[in-house]
Amino acid sequence: MGGDNAPREIVAGTLQAAKTFDARFILVGDQKQIEPLVDAASRAKNVDIVHAGEVVAMDEAPVAAVKRGGVTSMAKSFELVRDGDADAVFSAGNSGAFLAFSMIRLRPLAGIARPAFATIWPARNGPMVVLDAGANVDCKPEWLMQFAIMGSAYSHAVLGVEKPKVGLLSIGEEESKGNELIDAATPLLASAPIEFAGNVEGRDLLLGNVDVIVCDGFVGNVALKLAEGAGEYIFGALKEAATTSLGARIGAMLLRPKIREIRGRMDYREYGGAPVLGVRGVSFVGHGRTDAKAVVSACRAAFRAVHEDLVGTIARAIAKVNGAEAAR
Amino acid sequence: MGGDNAPREIVAGTLQAAKTFDARFILVGDQKQIEPLVDAASRAKNVDIVHAGEVVAMDEAPVAAVKRGGVTSMAKSFELVRDGDADAVFSAGNSGAFLAFSMIRLRPLAGIARPAFATIWPARNGPMVVLDAGANVDCKPEWLMQFAIMGSAYSHAVLGVEKPKVGLLSIGEEESKGNELIDAATPLLASAPIEFAGNVEGRDLLLGNVDVIVCDGFVGNVALKLAEGAGEYIFGALKEAATTSLGARIGAMLLRPKIREIRGRMDYREYGGAPVLGVRGVSFVGHGRTDAKAVVSACRAAFRAVHEDLVGTIARAIAKVNGAEAAR
Repeated sequence: MGGDNAPREIVAGTLQAAKTFDARFILVGDQKQIEPLVDAASRAKNVDIVHAGEVVAMDEAPVAAVKRGGVTSMAKSFELVRDGDADAVFSAGNSGAFLAFSMIRLRPLAGIARPAFATIWPARNGPMVVLDAGANVDCKPEWLMQFAIMGSAYSHAVLGVEKPKVGLLSIGEEESKGNELIDAATPLLASAPIEFAGNVEGRDLLLGNVDVIVCDGFVGNVALKLAEGAGEYIFGALKEAATTSLGARIGAMLLRPKIREIRGRMDYREYGGAPVLGVRGVSFVGHGRTDAKAVVSACRAAFRAVHEDLVGTIARAIAKVNGAEAAR
Repeated sequence: MGGDNAPREIVAGTLQAAKTFDARFILVGDQKQIEPLVDAASRAKNVDIVHAGEVVAMDEAPVAAVKRGGVTSMAKSFELVRDGDADAVFSAGNSGAFLAFSMIRLRPLAGIARPAFATIWPARNGPMVVLDAGANVDCKPEWLMQFAIMGSAYSHAVLGVEKPKVGLLSIGEEESKGNELIDAATPLLASAPIEFAGNVEGRDLLLGNVDVIVCDGFVGNVALKLAEGAGEYIFGALKEAATTSLGARIGAMLLRPKIREIRGRMDYREYGGAPVLGVRGVSFVGHGRTDAKAVVSACRAAFRAVHEDLVGTIARAIAKVNGAEAAR
């Protein structure tokens, strides 16, 4: 029920995913609104509806949303995962509330200091996992080390990268090595059970040769919004330019399929959503603008995360690191 | 003598600036290399050469560069400003060393906690002053307040904005208000003698409605490098796309002037360089790729900064704020 296009696009994407993936899909929300959108064949095969009468508002305070209990579609979805009736949860709704539900209903894995929001960037050399994207604005060095392990596990399990290379986001070497946080985190990442590629800088978020980039949630969120803004800025200018002369108009027309392809490649929908990593379940939050295509992508990512036991992999990796720490 | 294209492009830009601005220009560096590039008429009119036999290397440690004393062209340039023989200094050389020289040879203004690097972003609604861009990676809230005052003074004096609106860079409101630093700095900016427009987010660096955006040097540097990377990413993809079919090739050809115009608008050269604000003199460091056009822009900015008494304006504003603080 969350996001700008719910329930129509959410249901449409789910029905498409249900035809593609060997899994059961549970649509959680207002039965009266959802039922007319679902065909009988899908329901008979692998699509169910679970009723929840209320909806978490997009601007609702996360704490308030959680306090309302199980009456909302978001709360109910999380309860299904908590109770073992579902393996993964997706929503295009209120991301702050989604994070709160992930923390409170699913709870962090043992040994995880802070779960993180990860975003998947359409970098030049392939999808790049960037975390944290806003869940933890003030971080401790050890948290960044855990983010590195979680991001690496995600890249491997869901994106199929054999040995994900992990970079720690820092600044251009001409000025300094990094800030206090980064300087303290660097040796921790270097000794973690990951392929640590060293420090990277802002341009590497789009152009780099690593598979995972770790940063605190403040920097990650600024970067995410800036990258979205940069696309809007440049493509907006191109669109405007295309109306200024006949030549430009024809040129833009001829180039339009390519421009669309590039925008598509940069599209967040390609990867469906931002996983919350470090909790006892698979949970993805989508962009408010989520459409059917993005829902399919999110279902694909969730399907892989469950099949590859992403949660178990993270739990074991963290237990191992914490065990080694404790043994020192 | 600094940067990829020195001394050729630096001299060419300076000669052009010397014809445009009513000022004297002093080329500092290896006389043997510079002299052949300067025409007699310019020398007779308003271009001088001051010899300095050595050059600060692009990868030299700032401390090492300063320790070498006055033998380098960068050191000599700063001494000219320090001694009152010049009003402003520009270099396309080692930016870390440039900052160190600004701090040590020119020294911070009274009451300035930390000078800052400012960069001028080609935002959609006009040039945007973003600081700090990397001089101070770990900041105190009061420093951000001083950055706001300095950025505001720059926007007014050099870019001619009547009442610059200042935003404090933070993250999307759906997640939280900001980090500890931003939460502590917000009331300070709100009570500073500036037009505080509140918190802004990453996308506002390119699309926002403010004239100045304040952040710590770590976030500012990541953002700067990311924005450069985003341009490279998108325009690179467009260029590549333009070779994939005859239609795309023709379209790109027709659209090329517009694409060039957009890239030009986004070009750092439009604004020449990054001013170091808060020191006793006007100092601009250019990009390593600085060409003649960028030198002219830097000269224009320096010319305005001197004419509008940017340094005095900042000194008075800071004294006033610090006086008010002390009186409490």
